[in-house]
Formats: sequence, C-alpha cells, structure tokens
Amino acid sequence: MIRVGNGFDVHAYDPAAPLWLAGLEWPGEPGLSGHSDGDAVCHAIVDALLSAAGLGDIGELVGVDQPGTENAASTGFITTALSRLAEHGWQPVNVSAQIIGQRPKFAPRRGEAQRVLSDLIGAPVSLGATTTDHLGFTGRGEGVAVIATALITRG
Amino acid sequence: MIRVGNGFDVHAYDPAAPLWLAGLEWPGEPGLSGHSDGDAVCHAIVDALLSAAGLGDIGELVGVDQPGTENAASTGFITTALSRLAEHGWQPVNVSAQIIGQRPKFAPRRGEAQRVLSDLIGAPVSLGATTTDHLGFTGRGEGVAVIATALITRG
Amino acid sequence: MIRVGNGFDVHAYDPAAPLWLAGLEWPGEPGLSGHSDGDAVCHAIVDALLSAAGLGDIGELVGVDQPGTENAASTGFITTALSRLAEHGWQPVNVSAQIIGQRPKFAPRRGEAQRVLSDLIGAPVSLGATTTDHLGFTGRGEGVAVIATALITRG
Ligand SMILES: [Zn+2]
Ligand SMILES: [Zn+2]
Ligand SMILES: [Zn+2]
Repeated sequence: MIRVGNGFDVHAYDPAAPLWLAGLEWPGEPGLSGHSDGDAVCHAIVDALLSAAGLGDIGELVGVDQPGTENAASTGFITTALSRLAEHGWQPVNVSAQIIGQRPKFAPRRGEAQRVLSDLIGAPVSLGATTTDHLGFTGRGEGVAVIATALITRG
Repeated sequence: MIRVGNGFDVHAYDPAAPLWLAGLEWPGEPGLSGHSDGDAVCHAIVDALLSAAGLGDIGELVGVDQPGTENAASTGFITTALSRLAEHGWQPVNVSAQIIGQRPKFAPRRGEAQRVLSDLIGAPVSLGATTTDHLGFTGRGEGVAVIATALITRG
Repeated sequence: MIRVGNGFDVHAYDPAAPLWLAGLEWPGEPGLSGHSDGDAVCHAIVDALLSAAGLGDIGELVGVDQPGTENAASTGFITTALSRLAEHGWQPVNVSAQIIGQRPKFAPRRGEAQRVLSDLIGAPVSLGATTTDHLGFTGRGEGVAVIATALITRG
C-alpha cells in the first residue's frame, strides 16, 4: 500500500531574522519571515507527508494560534507529522524537495542537510536547489519557494 | 504496475464569475476566469491523471473548440478522464493537490472538498492550501495556481 | 523498491538562440538562455531522476565549470543521469512533466517529443503544457518553467 503527496511553501526573506532552511542554520544569510523559523523546506515536506496520508496540512497540525509555535524549530513539525502518520500505520518511503531561490547557495551544504533530514524522517530525503534565471519573485530575490514530493507506505 | 503523474494549472480571478474550486461552489468569493467554470483544482487533477497514464492532457480531452465545454462543470472533466484511464485498465491510487492563492480561505471547507473529489475519483484525494507571503502573482491576489500529483495502478 | 523524485527548472527566453525543448529543435521559435542548450524539460527530468535515486542534481552532474557542456545537447545529460542511476541499480518506471509558458505551442509536437524522450529514457515519458492566464513571468512571456516527477525502481 503506497501513497504519494506533494507540498509547496513560500517565505519572503527577512534580513533581520536568522536563516533556517532544510533543518540547518545558515549564519550570515538573510533569514525567512514567518511565525515559526520560516524553514520552507521543512514546511513543504510536512505538507507532502500529511497530504500523502490524508491527514490534513501543516496549518491544522501547528496552527499559528497554537501555543509554542512562535519561532519554533520546524524540524519539530516534521517529528509531529511523522507521529500522526505512525498513528495511522504510515511510514515514509522517500522524500524529494526542490528549493527555488537565489540564496543561500545550497550545494556546499546539501549533503549535510540531506543527512539531517533523512535521519529525522528515517527514510531518504533528497534536496536540490535551482534558480529561475532572475525571473519571478524568487529570481528578484524576494523569497524562497519549495516543492516537495513524498512517497509513504503502510505494511 | 504503478505510475506517477503531475499537473499544474493557473486561472486569473474574475470577480464577475461565480467561484468553483475543488468541485465546490464558493458563494460571495471572486470567481476564476476560463472557458469552463475555471476550477483549477479539477483541471490540475485531470492533467495529473492523464499524464500518469500517458493519455494526453486536458486540452485534448476537452478542447475549447469542443461543444458543451463552455461554462462546463470541471468535475465532468474528471469523470471523462477516469473513463479514458479505465479504458486502458488504469485506476487512481490517490491524488494530492496544493492550492496556491490568497482566496478563498480553504481550510474551513477542506473536508467537504476532499469528500466530493474522493467520491468522484473513487480513491483518496488530499487537498491543501497555502499562500505565498504576498509574493508573486498569487500573493498579489491576481490568480490561483494548483499543483497536483497522482498515483495510478493497473491490475 | 520504488522511489519518487521531483525536478523544477526555469529558463528565460533568448530570441537570439535556437529553441531546444523536450529533446526537439523548434525552428522559428525564440530560444532559451543557458550555458547548455537551455532545454528546461530535460533539465527538470534529470533533476527528478537524480533526486529520486538520491544521487545529487544536475549542477553536480554537469557543472557549468565542466568542459564540453557549453551549448551541449541536454538529452546527453539525461543519458549521463541514467548511467549514474544504473550504476546504483535504479531504472525509471515513468516520468511526467508539465511545461509552463506561452511558447512554443506544444500540443502539435507533443507525441513526437514524448517518443524521443521515452525512447531515450526507456520508460514512458508524459509531457503536458499549460499557460498561466497571462499571470506571472511565464504569462508575461519572459521564460519557461517545467515541473517534472519521476518514479524509479530497483529490482
Ligand atoms: Zn512555511
Ligand atoms: Zn484550467
Ligand atoms: Zn536548466
């Protein structure tokens, strides 16, 4: 028994905030705005996992109204999502996510980010990054978009 | 035997039209432009299903030149697509779609929309919605984009 | 053993360049900018295949610093990616890609493009194309975006 899910997330840059992306802190890089730490990679992955399992979305899971979510580490949202999947017998097969944006330069830390998220999820997480030839809001350096796709299974 | 397909669709808002989205009518909300009812969720799902099966796309299935498609209910396009899949022995495993836009506020009617489309498709349909931090055309409230992913199988 | 991967790519139009898209040359159409031939369909497919297998991305595979990639045919990048997958025992199940842009008018040559890429990949490749109701950078005719999703398996 196998299911697919996708997720999509966008955050604007907030130069006053620290950057958290793909479970890593990126010192010296402009951060992402948001109620939580703004980690669009984690958010898109959470939505892909929940969507695959038919268990709602990140807004329900960790609503902005809920206590304890301000400036929260988004890796914790992944852990929460995985618990909900496990309650229903689902486990991740693999996750693939593409980061669309001008910054940060992702390639040098890709292996590190993949290890952190793969360990967290207990299944392979592949991360890629691309720019948009200076087109659109990501090309103008206004924000970051992430597309995630997840495959899950139930024994 | 399993296949994956994706679909993507965008429609601009047309305040003079009624809004149909995800198989539901949304009274009081600005509608979406288009030859049919403009339901971008249904259109992206049709493309994802057809693409997974290698059976063309919505433009071939229900071209704007074809009689009876003006202001047509897009749920009918899903039914037509499912018939084409069935003719080739394919059936949906599940569908996941993310709605990207400022309006409508989707969460309150998510369960209802999922039920309508899951019943129509005969397999689980998960729907999510996200905004883009006021970035890009969806963030400026110009239109709605939808990304859909479908898994199908053949016995 | 099955894995999913996604890929995304954008190229701006370059009217001075010949257009290569989905493995075909499109005489008389404005080309796409890029170090290689700018074929965003091939690039998104390469990223989807590599991401599914956890084998990096197109930037590592065929970095702009590498000799022989200037004006290279992007179909060759697919061949290179498939070799890397095969080294690790992976083979494609199917690939689905959506082209987002005003030009070229894709439908008349869709079958041809699907045959070229399916033959190259040795598995079904489905291609679709959509416009964005004149919204965003693709709607303004500034460039082309492609979303690809791939399913791969290991025996
Ligand atoms: Zn987010
Ligand atoms: Zn449409
Ligand atoms: Zn490219």
